[in-house]
Amino acid sequence: MAEFRVQGDQRGVIMKFVIIGGDAAGMSAASRAKRNIPDMEVTVLEKTSDVSYSACGMPYNIAEPEVAIESLVVRQAHVFRERQGIDLRIGHRVESIDRTEKVVSGVDSEGKGFEIPYDKLLIATGATPRIPDVPGTDLPGVMSLKSLGDGRRIKDYIGRQNIKKAVIIGMGYIALEMVEALHARKIAVDMVKPRPVFIPWMNREMAPVVKEEVERHGVRLYAGHKIERIENGNDTLKVVCADLTLEGQMVLIAVGVRPASELAAAAGLELGPANAISVDKAVRTSDADIYSAGDCADAFHVVTNKKTWIPLALRANRAGWAAADNVAGKAVELQGIVGTAVFKVFDLQVARTGLSVSEAETFGFNPVEVMITARSRAHAHPDTSNIYVQMVGDQESGRLLGAQLVGKEGAAHRVNAPAVALHRRMSVAEFSQCDLAYAPPFGPTWDPMLTAANQLLKKM
Amino acid sequence: MAEFRVQGDQRGVIMKFVIIGGDAAGMSAASRAKRNIPDMEVTVLEKTSDVSYSACGMPYNIAEPEVAIESLVVRQAHVFRERQGIDLRIGHRVESIDRTEKVVSGVDSEGKGFEIPYDKLLIATGATPRIPDVPGTDLPGVMSLKSLGDGRRIKDYIGRQNIKKAVIIGMGYIALEMVEALHARKIAVDMVKPRPVFIPWMNREMAPVVKEEVERHGVRLYAGHKIERIENGNDTLKVVCADLTLEGQMVLIAVGVRPASELAAAAGLELGPANAISVDKAVRTSDADIYSAGDCADAFHVVTNKKTWIPLALRANRAGWAAADNVAGKAVELQGIVGTAVFKVFDLQVARTGLSVSEAETFGFNPVEVMITARSRAHAHPDTSNIYVQMVGDQESGRLLGAQLVGKEGAAHRVNAPAVALHRRMSVAEFSQCDLAYAPPFGPTWDPMLTAANQLLKKM
Repeated sequence: MAEFRVQGDQRGVIMKFVIIGGDAAGMSAASRAKRNIPDMEVTVLEKTSDVSYSACGMPYNIAEPEVAIESLVVRQAHVFRERQGIDLRIGHRVESIDRTEKVVSGVDSEGKGFEIPYDKLLIATGATPRIPDVPGTDLPGVMSLKSLGDGRRIKDYIGRQNIKKAVIIGMGYIALEMVEALHARKIAVDMVKPRPVFIPWMNREMAPVVKEEVERHGVRLYAGHKIERIENGNDTLKVVCADLTLEGQMVLIAVGVRPASELAAAAGLELGPANAISVDKAVRTSDADIYSAGDCADAFHVVTNKKTWIPLALRANRAGWAAADNVAGKAVELQGIVGTAVFKVFDLQVARTGLSVSEAETFGFNPVEVMITARSRAHAHPDTSNIYVQMVGDQESGRLLGAQLVGKEGAAHRVNAPAVALHRRMSVAEFSQCDLAYAPPFGPTWDPMLTAANQLLKKM
Repeated sequence: MAEFRVQGDQRGVIMKFVIIGGDAAGMSAASRAKRNIPDMEVTVLEKTSDVSYSACGMPYNIAEPEVAIESLVVRQAHVFRERQGIDLRIGHRVESIDRTEKVVSGVDSEGKGFEIPYDKLLIATGATPRIPDVPGTDLPGVMSLKSLGDGRRIKDYIGRQNIKKAVIIGMGYIALEMVEALHARKIAVDMVKPRPVFIPWMNREMAPVVKEEVERHGVRLYAGHKIERIENGNDTLKVVCADLTLEGQMVLIAVGVRPASELAAAAGLELGPANAISVDKAVRTSDADIYSAGDCADAFHVVTNKKTWIPLALRANRAGWAAADNVAGKAVELQGIVGTAVFKVFDLQVARTGLSVSEAETFGFNPVEVMITARSRAHAHPDTSNIYVQMVGDQESGRLLGAQLVGKEGAAHRVNAPAVALHRRMSVAEFSQCDLAYAPPFGPTWDPMLTAANQLLKKM
């Protein structure tokens, strides 16, 4: 592998691998590229001043005033540069890709232009927070959370101002993680969003369990209110809806993200679902010399057999590795994703994998759903609590299509069993026969996943 | 289904389904048989006075003096009799099976003989504690734990006597659960066993983690000491080894169990591994009218493709259902087991699935093993702890063969992901690509199972 050279080049010229974006996907790719071929010339161009940090850890870090936001940095820039030999350039914003000349160009933080040639390019530009198209989203104190810079800004703001009350626009998982963080900082929170359903993808009987957990902590939820504008009030910010005005010293916009694919689109690369950069199983774009990985790229969904866009950290890391391996000629293909995700909402674990009922319908399945309430520990075992499991199967084929779990304990890791089953396209009947672990402190004899599968089978 | 009648019988005679044994497998079968065919005549013959209790919950119940042992009873005898219409007879010991006449006979608790004819028979006689063949095992204060009667006896003994010190012979999972129970009752414990290795099936670097957890709680472990006899001392019992004598007011023998297959053997039924009653995938014995389920019966092992004997509660319940379904003509086959088990040792969760290295060798694989230390939560997340994962793959086929986990959190349910993978004979490479859940409170971005798989791939 170490003798790898640019294809078609007889002079042994060292390959130039350029990476746009220095977070999870970009730095995973850079590190792996140098491990694969130590004399490869690896250049990372990152527009901010931060690289390689745990973006998902930000809400938990913001919750703790005494811990520096920098503790989220997994590896320092100088380590990448000095120990790994990666040409890491921060404050470098790429503005265009010339695919014919194989050159990227842009400006650095001092306003100086740069042009860098590549043999192979990786676009790992991540995602951008979606900002509602209403007046006032640029007011001081209106913030969103995506980059470490955003996290730093929010944490500084909370630390400097004496914030007693905040408004969060959005009720997705980032919004729900942030409400817990703000609650830990003794900040009262109102949450508001236009759509009337609390967690749209969640089973209608399970979503209220999560809703109650949030409300139990004093958070007020306003679903179904279209935001008209944000404006300055008397020492506060006002979030104005048609029939409702909410006030706080801070407004957090957390209505989701969109793929940062503008650069790729401008270069004429194909886009996929949600305008994410379209990649094949080798994470190669429509240009054979350009790869894409991370929240800007799409992925193959194993359950639907179609492309999808689900921005998640594990996929970003894995796709970064795959890009680096393919650049090194290893011919790695990724199986794809099944949409496994988990988050914490106060004392609850919320997990899902595969398709919801409405997603299953969209993709042409004939879904049958079941929701069961089981216990997190065995009969008569102390400290047992409810665990709620939803499971979806396809009436025609008998296939397992997805599962959702909510519980105080035992939901987060349990979801991985149906996730593996989805990867191998197991039927509900086959899954129901799996030999899952049992001991009284950890669940009932019939694991809640198996009880859900057994109940689902009866309906199919 | 309700019109089911005895095969070959034109008069519509109601089927007689007789079940020997009234714990997990037996009562699961009885309940399901009545649900399948309400007018079936279902008779359960249980030699003790207890039915349908959580045997696995006994150590946890013994730990709590204020909770009655009867709280482990899942369903009372009168419910089975009155609401479910099951002819449940306690104190009925079956002594022989006449397969030609299709009659079981025995004696009841008053010494009165009985003879009961059957059309279909289920043997669910469970397992019997193994007792070392040394003098003194019948002394008062020397006990073992299998039936609810055993649990009651131990709990009464602890409650009545002022026990300060106990000796446990054995270091298997029942022994380790009991040491925690006795510790909770403020009883000091010495543990002793003949074999020198602490947990023989466990990876050699992981077993010390469990050992230290036990010793950290003041328990003294003496492995590699052959027990010669148990004798009365001065107000104590003495466990005498060649080079060591341990003393306590109570001795618990927990060196494992053996299948209670004597009745089946005497009736000429085929036996399998460990002398368990041999059953096919429909849990039918070598006699087409006799089924067997629970700890007395063997099972098909999905990884080895061979019969095995692993007494576990989930299989007992599942096999009980399968027997009842097959008796009702449903033609149910069980996939088999992969040997998934979990137990708690003080603050540690210990889990396994599939084969250990030495088991893999025994069954003709060419095993490669890896052991990794990962963290239970994300980088920089508070309260993170170590999680140890062992993984075994087959060098030839690339198949995943097994996994073991130890950790304070996140080990118990994580084992289910590789368990499902084993059911579908996944390769380590395929498993390494699974889309598992990630959020900072629940694990690192790369789940420890995936890191283990990635490391194992490098060695294969």
